[in-house]
Order: sequence, then C-alpha cells, then structure tokens
Amino acid sequence: MTADQPLSREQLHELAQQLRVDSVRAAAAGGSGHPTSSMSAADLMAVLLAKHLRYDFSSAEKRANDHLVFSKGHASPLLYAMYKLAGAIDDEELLTFRHFGSRLQGHPTPEIPWVDVATGSLGQGLPISVGIALAGKRLEHADFRVWVLCGDSELAEGSMWEAFEHAGHAQLDNLIAVVDVNRLGQRGPTMHEWDTSSLAARATACGWDVQEIDGHDIEAVDAAYERALAAGVPAAIFARTKKGSGVAAVEDQPNQHGKPIEDPAAAIEELGGERSLRVEVKRPPEPQPYEIVREAVERPAYESGEKVATRAAYGDALAWLGAIDEKVVALDGEVGNSTYAERFAAKHPDRFFEMYIAEQQMVAAAVGLQTRGWKPFASSFGAFLSRAYDFIRMGAISAADFKLCGSHVGVSIGPDGPSQMALEDIAAFRAVLDSVVLYPSDANQAVELLDAMRRHRGFSYMRTTREKTPVLYEAGETFEIGGSRTLRTGDDDAVTLIGAGITLHECLTAADELASNGIPARVVDLYSVKPVDAGTIVVAARETGALITVEDHWAEGGIGETVAGVLARAGSGTPLVSLAVSGRPGSGPPEALLAAAGIDSAHVVSAAEDVVAGNS
Amino acid sequence: MTADQPLSREQLHELAQQLRVDSVRAAAAGGSGHPTSSMSAADLMAVLLAKHLRYDFSSAEKRANDHLVFSKGHASPLLYAMYKLAGAIDDEELLTFRHFGSRLQGHPTPEIPWVDVATGSLGQGLPISVGIALAGKRLEHADFRVWVLCGDSELAEGSMWEAFEHAGHAQLDNLIAVVDVNRLGQRGPTMHEWDTSSLAARATACGWDVQEIDGHDIEAVDAAYERALAAGVPAAIFARTKKGSGVAAVEDQPNQHGKPIEDPAAAIEELGGERSLRVEVKRPPEPQPYEIVREAVERPAYESGEKVATRAAYGDALAWLGAIDEKVVALDGEVGNSTYAERFAAKHPDRFFEMYIAEQQMVAAAVGLQTRGWKPFASSFGAFLSRAYDFIRMGAISAADFKLCGSHVGVSIGPDGPSQMALEDIAAFRAVLDSVVLYPSDANQAVELLDAMRRHRGFSYMRTTREKTPVLYEAGETFEIGGSRTLRTGDDDAVTLIGAGITLHECLTAADELASNGIPARVVDLYSVKPVDAGTIVVAARETGALITVEDHWAEGGIGETVAGVLARAGSGTPLVSLAVSGRPGSGPPEALLAAAGIDSAHVVSAAEDVVAGNS
Repeated sequence: MTADQPLSREQLHELAQQLRVDSVRAAAAGGSGHPTSSMSAADLMAVLLAKHLRYDFSSAEKRANDHLVFSKGHASPLLYAMYKLAGAIDDEELLTFRHFGSRLQGHPTPEIPWVDVATGSLGQGLPISVGIALAGKRLEHADFRVWVLCGDSELAEGSMWEAFEHAGHAQLDNLIAVVDVNRLGQRGPTMHEWDTSSLAARATACGWDVQEIDGHDIEAVDAAYERALAAGVPAAIFARTKKGSGVAAVEDQPNQHGKPIEDPAAAIEELGGERSLRVEVKRPPEPQPYEIVREAVERPAYESGEKVATRAAYGDALAWLGAIDEKVVALDGEVGNSTYAERFAAKHPDRFFEMYIAEQQMVAAAVGLQTRGWKPFASSFGAFLSRAYDFIRMGAISAADFKLCGSHVGVSIGPDGPSQMALEDIAAFRAVLDSVVLYPSDANQAVELLDAMRRHRGFSYMRTTREKTPVLYEAGETFEIGGSRTLRTGDDDAVTLIGAGITLHECLTAADELASNGIPARVVDLYSVKPVDAGTIVVAARETGALITVEDHWAEGGIGETVAGVLARAGSGTPLVSLAVSGRPGSGPPEALLAAAGIDSAHVVSAAEDVVAGNS
Repeated sequence: MTADQPLSREQLHELAQQLRVDSVRAAAAGGSGHPTSSMSAADLMAVLLAKHLRYDFSSAEKRANDHLVFSKGHASPLLYAMYKLAGAIDDEELLTFRHFGSRLQGHPTPEIPWVDVATGSLGQGLPISVGIALAGKRLEHADFRVWVLCGDSELAEGSMWEAFEHAGHAQLDNLIAVVDVNRLGQRGPTMHEWDTSSLAARATACGWDVQEIDGHDIEAVDAAYERALAAGVPAAIFARTKKGSGVAAVEDQPNQHGKPIEDPAAAIEELGGERSLRVEVKRPPEPQPYEIVREAVERPAYESGEKVATRAAYGDALAWLGAIDEKVVALDGEVGNSTYAERFAAKHPDRFFEMYIAEQQMVAAAVGLQTRGWKPFASSFGAFLSRAYDFIRMGAISAADFKLCGSHVGVSIGPDGPSQMALEDIAAFRAVLDSVVLYPSDANQAVELLDAMRRHRGFSYMRTTREKTPVLYEAGETFEIGGSRTLRTGDDDAVTLIGAGITLHECLTAADELASNGIPARVVDLYSVKPVDAGTIVVAARETGALITVEDHWAEGGIGETVAGVLARAGSGTPLVSLAVSGRPGSGPPEALLAAAGIDSAHVVSAAEDVVAGNS
C-alpha cells in the first residue's frame, strides 16, 4: 500500500489488525511484554503511519523527519510492529523482542535508530517531546512534527502537566499528543477511566487544541489528525480505546496488563491471521536552512586573587560558549539570577529557554533538544535538580548528550537553610550511567571545565559554589575531565589534603597552618570527581603518610568514598580520614556552618595533626 | 484582640500591617530573606489567623489543631510574624531570624513545634498537605482543616497538579489551598502573572471549589474562607496580590525577590510603624475518637529452601504489620500487584492508599500522614522512586518517619530492560540525612527487617528483588538494622565474599565452587547497607586475605564503596575487589544479564581466584 492512493477504511483496519497480530506475536516470542497496551492503540498508530507521519526510515538522521515518541514505552510491541509495517525491520527481527542482545528491548531505547529517547519510566515522553518541538519551533523553524503516544495512566504524573503547561505557553503547534485512554492501568482502573472530560478541560486550559474521540473509529482518528495538524497550537487527542482490543479473551479485561496473551494462536486467528502488509510512509519535505545569530563574547578571564563565585563563572563561561558554538543552548528553572544563566540569556536570547520552576520539564527539554544536535546546558540550584533525578537517570539510558549545572551546593550557602543546600548531588549524579561529575574550585577552572563539558558527549554535571572564592589558577590553564591539580607538594609531605570547590580553600588554609606547625601537607584539587584521577591519589597515598578528604556534601557517595574506592582497588593501607557534612545543618553565616559541619580549615588541621601523630 | 468580638476591617488591616512590618524587620535583622514574598500574603494570613484558623499554640501536639503549611516556604518571615501575632514567640526571638542556632531558619523546619514539615523546595507543601488531609478524612474522621499557603511560581511544578488531582479524587473537603498570586517569581514575571483563569480552570477540572479574588481585599478574603469551609470539596483561592505590598519602593517591582528591604526604617514608617498587637487564635474543638479495624494476619514464615521473591515477602509482611500495629498504613504507585502492596490492601483496605502513577504525591502523602503519627510504607519500583528524590530529601530534613520499598532492583529483573531497573537507589538513598538502607537476601529476613523499619523512627528504605530466591534463614530469626550475617566461615578463609539481595546467592554458589577448587571463602550477607556493620567487615579484612563485594547496582555509592569506606577508616590494607554492574544493560533472562553485568557467581569465582593468586 502506498500513501499515493487513498487508503480505505477497510485497508486501514487491516493495517491495524496486522499491528495487533504482530504485537501478540512479539510478546509471545519474547515470553513477556505488553500486547494488550499495544492493541488498544493499534488503530491510532495504523492511521498515523499510513497517512500522516512523514518519515524516511532509510535515513533516521534526516533532519526533516517527523519524530514519533512512545511516551507509553511499554507499548513497544506496537512500535516494533510499526517498524515492520513500514519495512524498517523484518519479521525475523520482530520476533527477537526482549531476547538477550536484541535491540528490540522491553522498552524502546535509542539503540534503535528511529527511537529518539528511552522511555519506560512513565510521564517522560511528552516533556521530552516538548524539548524536541522547541528545537523545531524556536531554533530551527523547521516543518517536522512531533507525535507522542501517551498512556492514560501516565497522566497522573505531574511531569505530564508541566509539559502541557509549557507547550501551551510556547505555542508548540508542531506537537501532537495522542492519548490512548484504555481505562485500565497496571493493577486496575485509572482514576478517570473513559471519562476524558477532566483531562480535556485541563489541556484546554493549558492552551491546547483538544479533541475527545473513539480511538477505534478509524475515520474519527483520521479526522482528528487532520484537525490537529491545522490547530495552530499544540494538539491533544484523547482517544477512548479498549485495552487488548480485538481479542475477546483480553479486551477490556482486568489482570491482562504486561503479559503475553495466554493463547496467542487463537488470538491471531480471531484477528484474522498473520499478514505481511507494508505501507509506504510519506517522505518528509526537504529541510530548510536556518541561521543562528551569534553575538561575540570574550572568553572570561579572572585575575589571580580576585574573589569570584564559580556560579558567576558558569554564567560568564556559558555566554562565551554560546558565542563560539552555535549549538550551545541554555535552560534555567526560574533562578537564572542565582545560577547566572541570565548572563547567557542576555547575550543569546534566542537560544535561552526559561523553563520556570519545573525542573523535570527543564531536564526533559534538554534531553529533547539534544536529539536534534543541540548542546543543552540546564541549571538550577543543585538541591532542586534532585527533582529531576528520574529524568537524568533515563537521559543517561538514552545516552543523551546533556549538561547540568547545580548551584548553591553544600552548607556554605549560609542563611537559606538545608532545603536549599545540595548535599547529595555528587552521590546521586555519580550513580548515573557513564556520568561526569565536576566541581571547580575557582572561576578560571570553571570556565575551562565548562568548555570540556561542551566537548564531552554524554551526561555531565558541574556543581558550583554560591560564595565568592579566591581565584587560584591562571586564565586559560588547561583542566581536563578526569584530571586533578596538585597545588602544594614537597618531598617530605606528611599528609595529603584533598578537597574540591569551597573545601579546597579550607585545605589551603589548613596547609598553611600545618606548615607553621611543622607538618608539611600536600594539597590536591580533586575537581573531577568522576572520572577520578586515581593515579594522583595512589601516588599521594604512597608518598605521604595519610590522606584527608574534605567535602561540603554528605559522606555517602561523595569525595571521601570515591577516594576510599581508589585506595581499596589499589590495596593501599594508607590511612584515610574523610571529613564530610555531619549533623543536621541550619541557617547561619557560611563560616559558622562550615565549622558546625566539621569541614572548615580548623577541622582539617585537627584531623591532620591527629592522623600524623597516629602514624608517627 | 480576641476572636469573640468580630474584628473590623480596619482592625484586620492593622494585623496585616503588623505582619508586614515584622516581615521587614525579621529580614533586616537576618540580613537576608524574603520580605516582599511575605508582604503579598499578609492580608490573607491576617484574616486566616484572626478569624478562621483553629489552633492551640500552647499545644502543638493537640490532635484537633488545624494544620497550616507554608508551601511557599520562603515566606518564612510572614509565618514567624504570625507566630508573634498569635503570642507563640516574642519579638526578641523574631529578630533571631536566620541567625546561627535559631530555630527561625531561612525556610521553616519542624524544629519549630508548629511546623509540620520542612518546606523551601517549592511544590511540596500542597502534596504533603494532601497526606495530612487524607489522614483526617480517611483514617481519623477528624474535624481539623489543612490550610496551605502556596506561591504562584510553584504552580509550574507538576507535583502541585498531582496534588490537585489527588485531592479532587479523594474529595478532601478539609483542604484549603490559598494561592498568593503576586505575579513575580524570583527572576521576573510568572507564566500567567495575574491571569488566574487557566489555573482556576484546571483546579476546577480537578474537582475543586475555586475562587479568584483580590488578595488585598480583606472582606473578599474573609468571604472566600467562609465559602471554602463550606465547599464540601477541596477549595482553592487564587488571590491576586502585589509582591511587597504596602511599601511603594518594592511593591510590584522587579528585582525585589529574596532580599531585605533596602531602607527598612522608611518601609516600617510607610506601613504605620511597629505594632505589638496580639490575636487570640480560635481553639480547636475537642477531638473525636476513631477506631481502626484490624483484621488478624499471621506472621509470614517461609520454609528453608522454598523459593520466594523478597518483594512477595514485603507484601506478606506488610499485611502482618498492619494487623499488629494499627498505625501502619500503606501507599502504592499503581504497581501494587508487582510490589505486592496489594496484599496489605486486601487485608486492610481502609489503611491502603492507591496513589496512582504519581510517585512525588505518593511520597509527599507518606510524609503528610506521618505528621499525624501514622507509620506509612510506600512502594513502587525502585527505579521510579528516583522520581520522588527531592521529596525524600526534604522528608529527611523534616526528620519525618516514613518508610519506602523499591522493588525490581538491578539487572536481575530481566526482560523489561534498563528503564525499569533500579541501579542507583542504594547510592541515592544512602546520601539522605540519617537514612537507613536495607537489602534483604531472603524472605524471612525481609519480614524481620520490615518490622525493624516499623519500629525505627526516620526515613528507611528497603530494596526488594523481583526474582524468586531460595529461603536461607529460619522464620523468626532476628535481624537488626546495622547488622550483617556471616553464612560461611572458617579458620583458613582465603577470601571474604560480601553480597546482599540476589548477589548473596551468587556468592554462596561461588563459595561452593571455590571450596571445590581448594579456596575456602567466607560469605557475609550485608543486608544493612546503611548503617553498615563495620566490625564484621574489619574482622573479615584482618582474618581473610581479600574481600570481594558483589552488587546488582552501579559501582558508585553502593556496597563496594561502603565497604571501601569502612576499610579506609580502619586503615586496612586488605585488597578489595568490587564487582558491580558495568556497561549498559538491556533486556534478557536474569541469568544472562547478571553474567553480562559481571556480577554472577562465575565472575565472583574468577575474581576470588585472581585475588587469592595475587596474594599468595
């Protein structure tokens, strides 16, 4: 069948039946999976694939291709059946579903070239699609459309409503959400079942064009897509469907979620048997060129001894990166005057995205933007990035290239109190697949490391300090991901002090005091917490009598445990004392809080004296 | 002034002016803070305190007291000014705002007896209040009301809409959200500024009674509260206000967020000067008794050698705990047939809360429920609890007593793929203030540890395994938080294998194989990852030649680094090899995935042989 000749309702129904049959077959072959959640959306996706999607499956990289995101990632059998219907995969591959080594995993991942992002944690596909649509609308002025198949259960996730809100605000008329309202969640009925009125009213209030249709009425589906494409605003189609539709044994039945059909042969027969239909999916139009205006910005450089907060350096450096790399874009969660993302916005307003206080949508938009080759830097207080942890986790599973900056880390922020202090970000972001975690200790280093993040592909994170700290390094000095810098060293060092960020300055102060007490101390700036410079640590362990780590972070999963892991792998018996935030912090001046947490220079001195005395 | 005599509009205005003046004074004394965000809501809170709130400040524990939650926690000066107006604190204490050691921190925390939960991470107060309201409505059938002061900026957080949705669904007529629509966020205008129509339409669609008023019109405010109390459904009041209202220099001005008024003396004069008014806040009615029905449930006990998934034991044990402790309640994120929370629901339906797929609201509700003395256990897939990380972080800052269970951890879940695998939960939850992280290795141990979680006060987390594993321990055997169990030990152990959960079984298999190869191995079940049994590890390090940790989790922040930290603190030079999930997992059978990740028994054997050979 080709798109040139109009397909009859019967022909479209046949396509949908093939999608159902193949969903049943894939799940049967895989021994697990979600055929019933696939069958409910088969008519919706058959009409989309045959009549409206514009996609050159032979060239997934094609810039003008539409995007198709399965926000309900568990409907992967349907997605893979669509690939077969489009001729992108063959039947043999379809039946490798969920097999070890197959790219047709339980939930879609970008190991498949036509998949933009991994889904399967519900409530993420739509907010990520907002990012893709923003790229098309705001940056590329492109004709592609973003189609998102959503589940009804996932509309309970607040992140979906962040997406409705933001898409309406940004008037993303290239975004079409198709909601498969099949009434049944994993364990039973959804909150609203088939009453779509509340959901529709909310989407309407967010500025969307909203339709409520019968998702098995092929003509209604077709008409809904026609209207959505012409809406001029983001469009939502709430399609009432039956889970497991087409097979009486499971159709609209409870306890049929996430498992193969018990009798697949009978189901396939009831659906009219196996088919080998193919559709010619419409090709996208030729992509149009677009232009990015780049205002010139000097590379920031700070004078030695000057006091500059690394968060301010982040803003300066980001503005500079925007000038040297037109792919750099920035997002912020309504705190740009604190993270200093506003300095990028001032220079490159077209490439700045104000995401308001919606950190999940912010990170999701970053992940969406990078699917189009943009290099997103997103910032908020480090503490509030914890809000988006699941999105970061999934972004890494997508192997997405996105960069985050968390400001206001640690107790050293002072009077705002513990709700605003990131004390878990190193631990949380180290425990992300293939992540990079950087913690600059001065402003010039922050500039260099941010450029390193720009060049790095994958998820990277920089934590920045609220307080101003003295500039230590020369402007333009090179710092690499995975490196460290030894600031004080001598042949008779009795102890090594390891810090990063604000605690490096405490280490330097402590080293001065220790020196005057006759205890020479090495000082290492461990600005790259992951990957870590194990070599320097191991040498320090061998050459000095003891190591002391100091961090403005909880002990768990932070710099101390990173170093402990290095020593353990090396089989080193050198004593390690790890100073980290202990107790429950409150409000107060930064110095008082550093002291109360046990991580100021006085505590470093005391720990060093104790460990050296113990060693001697 | 007392509540007995009706207060005039002028008198109420005077109270509001005192709240403004004291907000200005507190921020001036603290040298930082959010006076303008306080002043916008002064009229709203003056009328509430003087006329509608029922609260005995002399007895914060009083069960019948209303609850007042500042979801916009940065308006803390206003809250503390209200305490002064109510006579709960004196002027001297008010002026300790944000001082080191003062309980009047930058954002409210429960160190103050009248504060239920810490706020300051926006978008949390309302969802937590849903939990408090659920306690009143569903469990206690109590008369108290929950008043929540929300900001307009935080309505961008999806978690707020999870709360609107859930409160509407649960018909929480004891919940009143007062939204201070002051039009200005931290860095500039909000998305909707004073156009409350979209927000109002959405709240209405969620089933709330909605009013849009002028938040500085004292009579309108009063009337709005009257209507809200009689609404019979949750009530939202969208009150248009001016940030910094009452002081021309800052009123509705940009760049006035989060800082003291530049000229406080002039501002105080403009507001009519300092006042020392006091209101008698209405006392609550006498609390009514309520009754909890407890169906008898036997303590679960599993036969040695039987294969039982620890997630199933979670469900069985939770049902039993519900029978022995009427304060135990359970929540689940629409996956109760996978986490087995459904087994609690079947026995104790009145104490089970279906939270749908809204993990933030689920954890928030747990935190809310525990403010009333309930012992909430909330469950979902471990991977999806990452969605609620900021709520868990803040719950710990609140010193809240709540318990989470994450199922389906690690690559061993098999075919569903990486989106469903919790591989970061140990790291993330260890890095939470005063947390407990447990990882049972068999079903009987899971029962005992869940009871230990019930008895523990604070945040505790249990990770459970999807796959069935053999029962190792006798029913009723005691396991304590902070303990471990040595399963194999001998005088000539060459190596210690440390696992937990599914990897303990790999360790046991490996120990058998090593024994047959002439390498005696000790095996330790490190079921309590935090706090950890350092003593047993240190002894093993001393008595055996090497340690090997094995975990179905990323290397960062997991069991391996926990053990490395212990060894480092002890100055041990015993070699440690940490096996953890490496590479990007996909779909497949659990055995294949454990092997591919490098954490099955074959990898343990090989690592042990290598390290023993290296030592000899």
